[in-house]
Amino acid sequence: MSETNQQIRLAARPSGLPDSSVWDLTTEPVPTPGQGEFVVQMSHISVDPAMRGWMNDMPSYLPPVELGAVMRAGAVGRVIASEHPEFEEGEHVYAAFGVQEFALSDGAGVIKVDPTMAPLPTFLGALGLTGLTAYFGLLDVGKLKEGETVVVSGAAGAVGSIVGQIAKLKGCRAVGIAGGAEKCEWITEELGFDGAIDYKQGDIRRPLRDLTPDRIDVYFDNVGGEILDAALTRLARGARIVLCGGISQYNADRPSGPSNYLAMIAARATMTGFLVFDFADRYPEAIADLAGWLRDGKLESREYIVEGGVQAFPDTLLKLFEGENTGKLVIAV
Amino acid sequence: MSETNQQIRLAARPSGLPDSSVWDLTTEPVPTPGQGEFVVQMSHISVDPAMRGWMNDMPSYLPPVELGAVMRAGAVGRVIASEHPEFEEGEHVYAAFGVQEFALSDGAGVIKVDPTMAPLPTFLGALGLTGLTAYFGLLDVGKLKEGETVVVSGAAGAVGSIVGQIAKLKGCRAVGIAGGAEKCEWITEELGFDGAIDYKQGDIRRPLRDLTPDRIDVYFDNVGGEILDAALTRLARGARIVLCGGISQYNADRPSGPSNYLAMIAARATMTGFLVFDFADRYPEAIADLAGWLRDGKLESREYIVEGGVQAFPDTLLKLFEGENTGKLVIAV
Repeated sequence: MSETNQQIRLAARPSGLPDSSVWDLTTEPVPTPGQGEFVVQMSHISVDPAMRGWMNDMPSYLPPVELGAVMRAGAVGRVIASEHPEFEEGEHVYAAFGVQEFALSDGAGVIKVDPTMAPLPTFLGALGLTGLTAYFGLLDVGKLKEGETVVVSGAAGAVGSIVGQIAKLKGCRAVGIAGGAEKCEWITEELGFDGAIDYKQGDIRRPLRDLTPDRIDVYFDNVGGEILDAALTRLARGARIVLCGGISQYNADRPSGPSNYLAMIAARATMTGFLVFDFADRYPEAIADLAGWLRDGKLESREYIVEGGVQAFPDTLLKLFEGENTGKLVIAV
Repeated sequence: MSETNQQIRLAARPSGLPDSSVWDLTTEPVPTPGQGEFVVQMSHISVDPAMRGWMNDMPSYLPPVELGAVMRAGAVGRVIASEHPEFEEGEHVYAAFGVQEFALSDGAGVIKVDPTMAPLPTFLGALGLTGLTAYFGLLDVGKLKEGETVVVSGAAGAVGSIVGQIAKLKGCRAVGIAGGAEKCEWITEELGFDGAIDYKQGDIRRPLRDLTPDRIDVYFDNVGGEILDAALTRLARGARIVLCGGISQYNADRPSGPSNYLAMIAARATMTGFLVFDFADRYPEAIADLAGWLRDGKLESREYIVEGGVQAFPDTLLKLFEGENTGKLVIAV
């Protein structure tokens, strides 16, 4: 075991893409737990689009990461020392432990995970906030009904790949929009989507029209920009647009809004922003569903694991915005 | 009585603002009713922002007005000749009779109005689709609750002026955004809005912040553009954005979407497009409420009446987009 704790701290607020100048790599001694505390050694760290928003000095659903602070990140790890009555050495846990090798915790916001149920990175993917976001976003916010047509952007990404699979499990038509032939093949051949559109091949309007003969009942948006605009031209009456994210706009000086938003009037459509945290009291039922589907082979959770530990974080975050990952992007520590 | 029927027909599809070249003034003999028909002599014709959309060759909630056809418009008038068992000479009626002096009807879509209840133009305003749009948009789509803060754009316009008044009637804070000091004074001094912002005085963000100390629970949008964008920066958690129209964008080549739409995620906000027609089975209850408020002096319906008959229509429509009217814009025939 390393006796130092490497950490990635936010050194400056980025404008546009967060290059290496905004990060500091720092080293501290591994903390020692006091009474009511325990220490976690990180196994895998989650890399998420939402991180870009946390880096801005703007009030939002969470306070901005302070300059000089360890970068906020969800992570799974193992308790290696404990003076806390409810957490024992050797137990596995999830929390927003940050981009660091070790974290000191008093147990607040910490969830125990069972590594016999699934590999640890899956608790950052289908059995973590990613899966829960797909689940509540599609079923509760999107009010999905059997037989409807679901279109999801970022469809080969962490959330999108789960959204399409849940849509299929619920008896719906699922069409995914993703970047590149390989991703499109994965979601159709392996995950069972009914169709895929490679946005890198040009204007998606024509293929979107062809693949949604009954138009779109639920559009689950992870990307924003031109793809959102195209989806707005295909809304069915009463369509629900689930606003999960807008990764194409996170690094823009001034985001580009959806020009076609007035199409929502004729379609009597609804666009709803949501955060998975609001469903916290229902996580257990959702996890039970997701774990059951995983166990039965009806749901595939793919993690895109980057080796290299916390030092790999700055480059890995950029890869996320380049769309390099298929499935959930995580760093192995 | 004139023996000819002057009509305004759509001669060409406009790009941008509809100038005089897109209209034809035609003259026909006054029609004679056949069996099951009657003839209406127009009293007042409604001039509405939605007309601009009907002129485009794009499928929407109503088919486009065909080239050469009489321009679609709601109107009130009097039955002057009838071979229809349910409509008698002398009765007053409302329907989409079009921009013309006389219309032949078989009764489809025609609503009788009682001129002892209110002046005829009011049936195009507070007791017409305008009032119904405000009513259902605010109460049903916006799910307004007592004590909430409502912000409405186009606040001195037909729909907006009713929205703010209903908000006050329901025990809410009402803030209106309008163009010019006179309009702002009208909505605060006469209509009882708690505050008004003159968008012609510059950036509205500062005054909007000052006037919405508890942020915005319901934003009722009639205009789109920068005003919608500003409202998105002030959303309360769980805010509802009622998408009624976007008059600032109707003549744009490519409408400008709301850049700040991603603020809806942190706010868990919902934006919903709606059309009043979907509430048709509940018009009677709404009209009863609106008429009661009018009678009791709790609701003011102002109509901005342009003289000059159907010939005045092309210029009057442009005045609408210039924001010249205060209250409901109608043409007296």
